[in-house]
Amino acid sequence: MDKQFWITDQIIDVNECISKVTRAEAGAINTFIGTVREFTKGKRTVYLEYQAYASMAEKKLAQIGEEIASKWENTETSIAHRIGRLEISDIAVVIAVSTPHRNDAFEASRYAIERIKEIVPIWKKEHWENGTLWIGDQKENISYEKSMPKKEDMQND
Amino acid sequence: MDKQFWITDQIIDVNECISKVTRAEAGAINTFIGTVREFTKGKRTVYLEYQAYASMAEKKLAQIGEEIASKWENTETSIAHRIGRLEISDIAVVIAVSTPHRNDAFEASRYAIERIKEIVPIWKKEHWENGTLWIGDQKENISYEKSMPKKEDMQND
Repeated sequence: MDKQFWITDQIIDVNECISKVTRAEAGAINTFIGTVREFTKGKRTVYLEYQAYASMAEKKLAQIGEEIASKWENTETSIAHRIGRLEISDIAVVIAVSTPHRNDAFEASRYAIERIKEIVPIWKKEHWENGTLWIGDQKENISYEKSMPKKEDMQND
Repeated sequence: MDKQFWITDQIIDVNECISKVTRAEAGAINTFIGTVREFTKGKRTVYLEYQAYASMAEKKLAQIGEEIASKWENTETSIAHRIGRLEISDIAVVIAVSTPHRNDAFEASRYAIERIKEIVPIWKKEHWENGTLWIGDQKENISYEKSMPKKEDMQND
């Protein structure tokens, strides 16, 4: 994988994101890893399914990298998001940000995960013990009973 | 390595720390990685040397894990710190903290790196282009020209 920002249906190796941001000028790397949690508000998840408009999602991930570069000095960012069926504890998303000093690495990594949830067209289908639901946006404000939203319904940002 | 908190003179694999905190209840893992930076305030580092009172250092790392467990709900923490000679970009320290929700993972990971610098007996010798210096404490307030501090000089906390 020679991309710095990518969508994949394969297992994500955290070391791949880390190696893409490791460099002599950096003294700090913050990595955020989102994994599939078994229980959410008392409901048991059996597995999750993620779908994305992959090429657009990769562009949005790269945009987040650019936003970070403009907000913090001397950063390098890599983000990978998995799609398809994910089991409990599987890695759904990996963010790695390197900076000269640690404060910026923490802040930029935190920024990245919030922005992913705001602007990246990825949807998740919850497969609970007793039912399923497409979660329409990653902030989980919109639900879709039947299927993921249509491309034209996607929010522009 | 079956320890959750350890000092090592071997390369640290970030995935080892991550796997020790991965679990069904967690949806978020924050990882902080400290790497050897080439330039500090215009001075070029050629390589670093870390020394530790290893058994005491491991106890202090475990103590930080306990502090985190008492401050944030449902956390799992793993920390590894390398000693010996480290080259530019080598990983010196890895912290991984898993929590149900992401906010706590960021906060607890940040807490861990600050506490490591406060209470863990590890010293670093800077090998600059034109000289060397033992850094007496990890907050870098005390310098030792000749050698690392004696065990009895160590600050208790």
